[in-house]
Amino acid sequence: MTQEMHPQRWGSPAHAGPLPESTQGLVEFAFGALSTPAVADVSLPASGLSDDLLAGLRDVIGAANVLTDDESRRLRTRGKSTPDLLKARSGDLTDAPDAVARPGSHDEVVQLLAWAVDHHVAVVPFGGGTSVTGGLVARREGYAGLVSLDLIRLNQLVSVDPISMTAKLQPGMRGPEAEAALAAHGMTLGHFPQSFEFATIGGFAATRSSGQNSASVGRFDQLVVGLKVATPIGELVAGSSPLNAAGPDLRQLVLGSEGTFGVITEVTVRVRAIATETAYEAWRFETFAAGQAAMRHLAQNQILPTIIRLSDESETALNLASQTAVGAEAATGCLMIVGHEGASIANKRGVVTEALTALGGEALGEERGNAWKAGRFHAPYLRDSMLDVGVLVETLETATFWSNTDRLYAAVKSALEASLGEGTLVLCHVSHVYETGCSLYFTVAAKQGDDPLPRWLAAKAAASDAMIESGATITHHHAVGTDHKAWFEREIGPVGVAMLRGVKATVDPTGILNPGVLIP
Amino acid sequence: MTQEMHPQRWGSPAHAGPLPESTQGLVEFAFGALSTPAVADVSLPASGLSDDLLAGLRDVIGAANVLTDDESRRLRTRGKSTPDLLKARSGDLTDAPDAVARPGSHDEVVQLLAWAVDHHVAVVPFGGGTSVTGGLVARREGYAGLVSLDLIRLNQLVSVDPISMTAKLQPGMRGPEAEAALAAHGMTLGHFPQSFEFATIGGFAATRSSGQNSASVGRFDQLVVGLKVATPIGELVAGSSPLNAAGPDLRQLVLGSEGTFGVITEVTVRVRAIATETAYEAWRFETFAAGQAAMRHLAQNQILPTIIRLSDESETALNLASQTAVGAEAATGCLMIVGHEGASIANKRGVVTEALTALGGEALGEERGNAWKAGRFHAPYLRDSMLDVGVLVETLETATFWSNTDRLYAAVKSALEASLGEGTLVLCHVSHVYETGCSLYFTVAAKQGDDPLPRWLAAKAAASDAMIESGATITHHHAVGTDHKAWFEREIGPVGVAMLRGVKATVDPTGILNPGVLIP
Repeated sequence: MTQEMHPQRWGSPAHAGPLPESTQGLVEFAFGALSTPAVADVSLPASGLSDDLLAGLRDVIGAANVLTDDESRRLRTRGKSTPDLLKARSGDLTDAPDAVARPGSHDEVVQLLAWAVDHHVAVVPFGGGTSVTGGLVARREGYAGLVSLDLIRLNQLVSVDPISMTAKLQPGMRGPEAEAALAAHGMTLGHFPQSFEFATIGGFAATRSSGQNSASVGRFDQLVVGLKVATPIGELVAGSSPLNAAGPDLRQLVLGSEGTFGVITEVTVRVRAIATETAYEAWRFETFAAGQAAMRHLAQNQILPTIIRLSDESETALNLASQTAVGAEAATGCLMIVGHEGASIANKRGVVTEALTALGGEALGEERGNAWKAGRFHAPYLRDSMLDVGVLVETLETATFWSNTDRLYAAVKSALEASLGEGTLVLCHVSHVYETGCSLYFTVAAKQGDDPLPRWLAAKAAASDAMIESGATITHHHAVGTDHKAWFEREIGPVGVAMLRGVKATVDPTGILNPGVLIP
Repeated sequence: MTQEMHPQRWGSPAHAGPLPESTQGLVEFAFGALSTPAVADVSLPASGLSDDLLAGLRDVIGAANVLTDDESRRLRTRGKSTPDLLKARSGDLTDAPDAVARPGSHDEVVQLLAWAVDHHVAVVPFGGGTSVTGGLVARREGYAGLVSLDLIRLNQLVSVDPISMTAKLQPGMRGPEAEAALAAHGMTLGHFPQSFEFATIGGFAATRSSGQNSASVGRFDQLVVGLKVATPIGELVAGSSPLNAAGPDLRQLVLGSEGTFGVITEVTVRVRAIATETAYEAWRFETFAAGQAAMRHLAQNQILPTIIRLSDESETALNLASQTAVGAEAATGCLMIVGHEGASIANKRGVVTEALTALGGEALGEERGNAWKAGRFHAPYLRDSMLDVGVLVETLETATFWSNTDRLYAAVKSALEASLGEGTLVLCHVSHVYETGCSLYFTVAAKQGDDPLPRWLAAKAAASDAMIESGATITHHHAVGTDHKAWFEREIGPVGVAMLRGVKATVDPTGILNPGVLIP
């Protein structure tokens, strides 16, 4: 099964490693001579929680489930954004929790929250630790301490309903654990974000995650039919039916609340039968605009395949150039990956193939489609390898309506290039498609420079400004955390902020839950 | 274009009329000798708003837009539930608004709300007046008066985006107005609830309406991509993108808020190209369970047609019996209506036909499908005609997951039969289908008796208890209003109620908006 992640890198050490030689050559070509920045390895400050408080916490959930050792605290320090990694590499451990608490049941979560309220201790719900927006960096000033509430012991498949095709999952299950448990019933959740191997069911729900099969399966917030939430004022059970007209949809108020309203202790999701047929294909479109027009046609005619993504010219050129099997002439234009999964895919596949061909697509066959499938969780590892050689790599994403994608694309791209200067690579792909619009996912690579953190933060701010000024969202599937708060406030406006504060003040009146995260 | 409704009946007088002779015979057979209850016609009490307040209101939106005549006030008294009609027929006009205000712009709505806050006047947003759950019966105690805020002047198509396939609509547009305006651009909203001819865009949004094409088009809350809302603390503009991870989805907090958080002044919706091909077919299944299993198969294999609905054995028998063209033997089993609409329906139609046939469905051809299409907005007129001859007819609906439909169906049916006694007809159909479950829509007919209102309210309470005790929702698409509040509270629990109250206290701190509606 999956392991905990390295405190300074993405993922399992077994999958990490130095840059392949072929990539090293490319990196040197793009960014010049490589440096190897030092990685600091300092020890943590002592836990800030008093002995009395720690003893009380041990009484609540058992001594074995309260961890204060360096390694446990270090592993729950921040998330996995490039700034998080840079801080970890530089030895900055100021955001480490004072203790890690591992409750074993909904009731223990409730009791832990009551203890935290009584002693005014900040509580940060922790799933896979894969946040890339500072979602685990809560404010600690004014609190008696900060506890990371690790949900890892809540990792069971509670029940399945094969008639309704739903499953009740505990929040600490990681992606592969959930899929393995469901597979025993012939079911799949089908939620495959890039963080799949480490992120958890609770985290998917709390951050409105979106997976690579979203075109057919839906976003995680569309997969959730029920939620159980422990709040400081009691328990919320939402989801009496698939959809209904009984007031505002409270599930949609919890989804995306990033642990600020309560701790999600159970998630009931829609599942599907495991696909018996699959096919992954590559297509080529002459331009990013032509590829987007084809995606839009499929979406607006309700004939989307299971997976569809489209790289812009830059990303296409880079991806193809790094493959030896594809000739140089194939690196022009824009690469589209199309995946079909189901019990019987021939009919839909035929319809999609006909439409893409009519819209100017050139079928490139299954080889590159299968390569994409095989490598689809690997990109974060590459980021560490690039950091190892002094190249800053980060991703950011947004979404807008179809009529606004050109403007948004140009604005974000030029903001990043202007901020990071000559030699910056900005790549983009469309990774999620709706009838009315799509997401744009940018990958940025630039020389790390002498002071990489402020250098990146300035570029990120410029890109975020560009998103909001273009009328788009600050995040399609990375959530708000602390990094996006200022732009989130602009996106939803003062009344939107007031609504969230109103809910927060009601369910968490003393403000112990993930303070400073999400809500401006 | 559509007209205002009769104050004591559904719809336009032109479409109303006595029961057809064929139906009269059926009614006499089922319920015995018919009576003709008296209909009272009393005049209204004088407006309770002081002359000073009325003068102030006229200053805000213009004298011509403040109506205090009997007819205007009577037309905005309550909605169109059977209890509403019974009260109107009995001459009970205690819930009449003191005045009707018709602001002409978002800014005028804002100013009207400021005036109402200043003078502590209750404001009831009014669209088509089609509520069947007491959504227009606000609490007036403690207020200086009660104003019906009629959105009828906000009835423009603001803009269309043919690339993103969205349209921005003002809230006072009725269904046919919206469709006509969109048709000029080759677009359709495709939202056809039974109230389509009278209900408005704002009402659809405020109540989470669901239309007859929901299987393909989606519920109204799934059609909305953007909202502009005037609240007492300012303006909310929600919807930066199709979907995103920027916190909880505030659109889903406004949708279903029934005018208690603010007045919706603009709705941006997903639209589609007008269908060039349509086909409506009837199918027969041996049992309600077999028909539901077929629906479930289509939904869980993502091959739903545009329209799908299934009558139980009782509803099938009654519907078919009232048609002369169909032999008596066809009245057994369960009738399913299947509709296909689109640019090219042959492929999907073939897939659906094959699946339904394999699952035991018997194709009955297009005649009854077309008859359903032609008559699909007429049922509410029949209710008045039945009341005219002393038969109480009402509908109620719920939704649950597939594994729970048998239990829910039996519980609601027996609760109604037990409460209303011998000779009660309880009919049911599945009108909306999801991957994980469906709605159950009940029609009840019983002798009116001497005291019809308490007789019906007791039956409605028994049915509502049965829904909640079965773990289902109190309403799939009729909203909460005042009639469902007690059961809504049980459905969402104390923390859910607290969350809604927290939002309400924030955006409407003095509680002028639709007081007593929705929020327990």
